[in-house]
Amino acid sequence: MSDDTYWTDDPSELLRVQPGFRLSQQPTDGTPGFAGGKREGEKALARGAGRLADLQEQLFACGREGEPRSVLLVLQAMDTAGKGGIVSHVIGAMNPGGVQYAAFGAPTPEEQAHDFLWRVWREVPAAGRIGVFDRSHYEDVLIGRVRKLAPPDELERRYGAINAFEKELAQSGTTILKVMLHLGKDEQRKRLESRLNRRDKLWKFNPADVDERLHWDDYQEAYQLAFDRTTSAYAPWFVVPADHKWYARVAVQQLLIRALEALGLEWPLPDYDVEEQKRRLAAS
Amino acid sequence: MSDDTYWTDDPSELLRVQPGFRLSQQPTDGTPGFAGGKREGEKALARGAGRLADLQEQLFACGREGEPRSVLLVLQAMDTAGKGGIVSHVIGAMNPGGVQYAAFGAPTPEEQAHDFLWRVWREVPAAGRIGVFDRSHYEDVLIGRVRKLAPPDELERRYGAINAFEKELAQSGTTILKVMLHLGKDEQRKRLESRLNRRDKLWKFNPADVDERLHWDDYQEAYQLAFDRTTSAYAPWFVVPADHKWYARVAVQQLLIRALEALGLEWPLPDYDVEEQKRRLAAS
Repeated sequence: MSDDTYWTDDPSELLRVQPGFRLSQQPTDGTPGFAGGKREGEKALARGAGRLADLQEQLFACGREGEPRSVLLVLQAMDTAGKGGIVSHVIGAMNPGGVQYAAFGAPTPEEQAHDFLWRVWREVPAAGRIGVFDRSHYEDVLIGRVRKLAPPDELERRYGAINAFEKELAQSGTTILKVMLHLGKDEQRKRLESRLNRRDKLWKFNPADVDERLHWDDYQEAYQLAFDRTTSAYAPWFVVPADHKWYARVAVQQLLIRALEALGLEWPLPDYDVEEQKRRLAAS
Repeated sequence: MSDDTYWTDDPSELLRVQPGFRLSQQPTDGTPGFAGGKREGEKALARGAGRLADLQEQLFACGREGEPRSVLLVLQAMDTAGKGGIVSHVIGAMNPGGVQYAAFGAPTPEEQAHDFLWRVWREVPAAGRIGVFDRSHYEDVLIGRVRKLAPPDELERRYGAINAFEKELAQSGTTILKVMLHLGKDEQRKRLESRLNRRDKLWKFNPADVDERLHWDDYQEAYQLAFDRTTSAYAPWFVVPADHKWYARVAVQQLLIRALEALGLEWPLPDYDVEEQKRRLAAS
């Protein structure tokens, strides 16, 4: 069972983008549904890690036996919102052998010579795997839109292409979770400042981060539009308040746990005779 | 600094395959160089996890700034020797974003239509990454040899090809560690039996594991030959006693830590003016 000690409400309902959702009205510093503060959050995270690892192993086992199910977690956010921390602390608790992690940076010339979904298709999770997209095809309607990297018609076309792509994935057995880590603008300034003040974090800072920051409102609008156009029953969006790193981590972990539990996985039955194998083994 | 509390000797010296090495004379149940038992091993592992994660981040940072260095850990072993546990517990403690994990199973038809190194080249770690091969090109001189999957001339040719490949990698900046987890034959029987006795582990058992077990001595000879022919200064082999899972884990962790420490990594210098960026940020 999912850990109900701290969750007063199901975050997969609470954080889910519903019709009429307005990003601009969502607080970034809340901890909805979680009864506790940072200490309890860290406890819940540690406890959830074992549960998540078990579910992942079961998904993997089912995949090995030919079941087509997989899970895809899409992570989108403004810089410093905590994607990296979620990858380390939530995803990192699972067996790397069962996780397919893909980071999507600025496209290479080869990638640019293809449709925007080409590089994404290559990274979708295989049966039994948990795929994690650190940024994704949504960049093509976020920075793509804000920075006008494609003609207006092409930008418009992409929402439909994304829906068709995600529907195809979902129908072939992939459970899709799309997460936007929702960070406050002031909190971002603090986090960028702290990078500039630490010798061991300077490498994480890029002057382009400030350039992007100057387009903050445009990005918020582009996110709103993406939610309006690509929220679907088969590929829901979740907006996770991210000013508290501990909350964002435990919330995303819980979204994954509940999505995996909803699959109702069972350990696969062996396709060999257990007693016969015991005899062979004893004789070997 | 590497954790010297428990290590009385440097495992990267102690476990390294040296000229005249005989696998058949190596105990599988020892804990060489480690002053302590299972409890101390688990403590050391937990402490080492943080150190390893820090070094990995530093390697990653350097890679981002254009330094060509990377690390490749090759894991080879008989079934049940604990590769999976090492991937979970040692590799899993690092940020998945900086790790390139690749499992090499039976080759696909496409892989078989190429030279045996083709699929391996595609998975070598990029600059700043830690590559992990869960099985590797050595399968082509292990099961390849034992099961006569290639003509004798081709099998012979492969040792030289492997040496040339590993030399090329090393010269381009990759630190290579090749680890054989050395398991006792009786211990393997126990572990396979325990899989057959647990509902949640049946999926890990494959009747072919018993078939391979019947060729135990042939595999040990094939490993010996691989050590004789492919041990080099640029791509050393380490034989890690694996009857105690806790020891194998902490030993491989320590090999990685020491290899990373030997790189003498520094945090990269920023290629921007820190004070100027602070001013821009404050104004944003």
